[in-house]
Amino acid sequence: MSIIDELAKLGKMSDKHIKKYLLMNTSKEFEEVILYQINTGGKRIRPALTLASCLACEGDINEAFPAAASVEIAHNYSLILDDIIDHSELRRGKPTVWKKYGISTAILVAVHYRESATEALNDTYSPREFNKMFARTLKLLTDGERLDILFEQSGREDEPYVVHNRYSSIEFENYLEMIYKKTGALIETSCIFGGLSARADKKMLDALSSYGKMLGYAFQIGDDIIDLFGETEKTGKKVGGDIIEHKFGNAVIALALQELEEEKREKLLHILRKDKVLDNDIKEAIKIIEKYSNARQKAETLRQKYSQMAIESLSAIPNNKGKEYLIELANFISLRRY
Amino acid sequence: MSIIDELAKLGKMSDKHIKKYLLMNTSKEFEEVILYQINTGGKRIRPALTLASCLACEGDINEAFPAAASVEIAHNYSLILDDIIDHSELRRGKPTVWKKYGISTAILVAVHYRESATEALNDTYSPREFNKMFARTLKLLTDGERLDILFEQSGREDEPYVVHNRYSSIEFENYLEMIYKKTGALIETSCIFGGLSARADKKMLDALSSYGKMLGYAFQIGDDIIDLFGETEKTGKKVGGDIIEHKFGNAVIALALQELEEEKREKLLHILRKDKVLDNDIKEAIKIIEKYSNARQKAETLRQKYSQMAIESLSAIPNNKGKEYLIELANFISLRRY
Repeated sequence: MSIIDELAKLGKMSDKHIKKYLLMNTSKEFEEVILYQINTGGKRIRPALTLASCLACEGDINEAFPAAASVEIAHNYSLILDDIIDHSELRRGKPTVWKKYGISTAILVAVHYRESATEALNDTYSPREFNKMFARTLKLLTDGERLDILFEQSGREDEPYVVHNRYSSIEFENYLEMIYKKTGALIETSCIFGGLSARADKKMLDALSSYGKMLGYAFQIGDDIIDLFGETEKTGKKVGGDIIEHKFGNAVIALALQELEEEKREKLLHILRKDKVLDNDIKEAIKIIEKYSNARQKAETLRQKYSQMAIESLSAIPNNKGKEYLIELANFISLRRY
Repeated sequence: MSIIDELAKLGKMSDKHIKKYLLMNTSKEFEEVILYQINTGGKRIRPALTLASCLACEGDINEAFPAAASVEIAHNYSLILDDIIDHSELRRGKPTVWKKYGISTAILVAVHYRESATEALNDTYSPREFNKMFARTLKLLTDGERLDILFEQSGREDEPYVVHNRYSSIEFENYLEMIYKKTGALIETSCIFGGLSARADKKMLDALSSYGKMLGYAFQIGDDIIDLFGETEKTGKKVGGDIIEHKFGNAVIALALQELEEEKREKLLHILRKDKVLDNDIKEAIKIIEKYSNARQKAETLRQKYSQMAIESLSAIPNNKGKEYLIELANFISLRRY
């Protein structure tokens, strides 16, 4: 078994804890609906990070399961709501919660998930300490989602806040702020929760924090590359989803816009701002990016740089199996194609 | 100043705490949007209950402000989401959050509110104890909202879960279960939080629990009476909103359906199940209920019974100013017309 397979197995070990909290204080007749989202799949990267981080700090993983459950529940909570916000009908090849059950039901399921995370954190040794970080993380995640939406260049005409506050251009710094909030903060917290569960000292917690932050950048930049250049057979997703969604908030697009000469830049902006982006538009946008900019290569370089920085952050952590997991995950993320 | 005015003033004392938590970890540029919902008004009944319950248990109200803030934030969190679920465009005479800013923004604001409640509870003396009750309460609230929706007799054709699981008839017991979950549980928790903040003993906590539960029934039955028989000039609401929303989940309607003879019952059901309920339908439904059933009077009697039971629950509490507030509030709720 490869170390990545072992790590996936570690993540899956949190499933029974996740389900325990999701079914706590739940009406029998609603259980099936509650479990639908968590059963659609997912790689359990966040709980795997919590458990591996706990091991890396030489803690007992049994102490880390409640915190591991809380981060995966939080992740799925945000997915249920993001799918409503983005009108996404499919996730992991299956109907999203709102598509399957309706928007009202999806909102109620999301609220239920959020409370299950609190129930999980109540089983940690210090709900106060874990909750402080958890609440801050989810507020960041919300703000990241807000920025991601405001970076869109069209759509949402029925949403006054978005229409009035859209960004007409962004710096790469804005992109990095957005992805730290939207993706990085919860990945960072997943790592710190492992350290906290192991009662690690500040030096080790700082190492995990830095590792998680860098891994978050690498992970999201990887997602952005895959969105534009992935192979549908492997990813199960349509190529160019971010172009369809009019996004500035994709590393490759943000880098291309900085670099392209005026005429090509205007052409790309024109496509991103079309009411309805067609298949030919996607092809043309990707062609412009690949032919007239080095954005794809730059994004790849950044992804590898952040993965490398993640690994370097771990120098304060002793060499052990947990650290090995974290290093291999960073290596995997620096190269993944789906 | 009447004792009810004093109690309202007590509730308002929680406002600066509520705002402190809402603005914690918030982007400057999002603050105005975050504060909109809480600034639309509201009677602050829940924090008033927490503070009065703390006083009734001879505690220091300064210890109760974080918990008082958490219940009002939870209430507003549920209102933001309920307004999305019910497509409500106005609340307290102002546009609802989704109507003013758009649905995506409203969802993000709701998530932010939820985390602010956690931040508030982190300032209590035992986040574990408060969070346990809080999570359970919000799961009940979610389930109550689910039942309320399933008791509707038309609409939501685009929501598969609702269409497939609607109740075609309900017992009064089902109604009571639904309102305990939807309304009563958070009112009960508001009271218990005051007792916990005062470090009250089990006997007093049980008294507050029973008081809150009974008050919740009286409060919601009162709301249902006002929905059908209130005066728009006083309530600021259209008469018969629950008929427009096709609801079985209104005390008067539920009681009338039990009592009406076949023909009138069918007529009322027909109106509740119409795709679109017109003004004349509302008038007719109310006429049927008033002329051919004693449902209005029965609901009034129940409201008074539950208010009385709330007051009787307080016998374990010593006579003091806090108890006086709780008694007067129950008296007020047994009679209120708006």
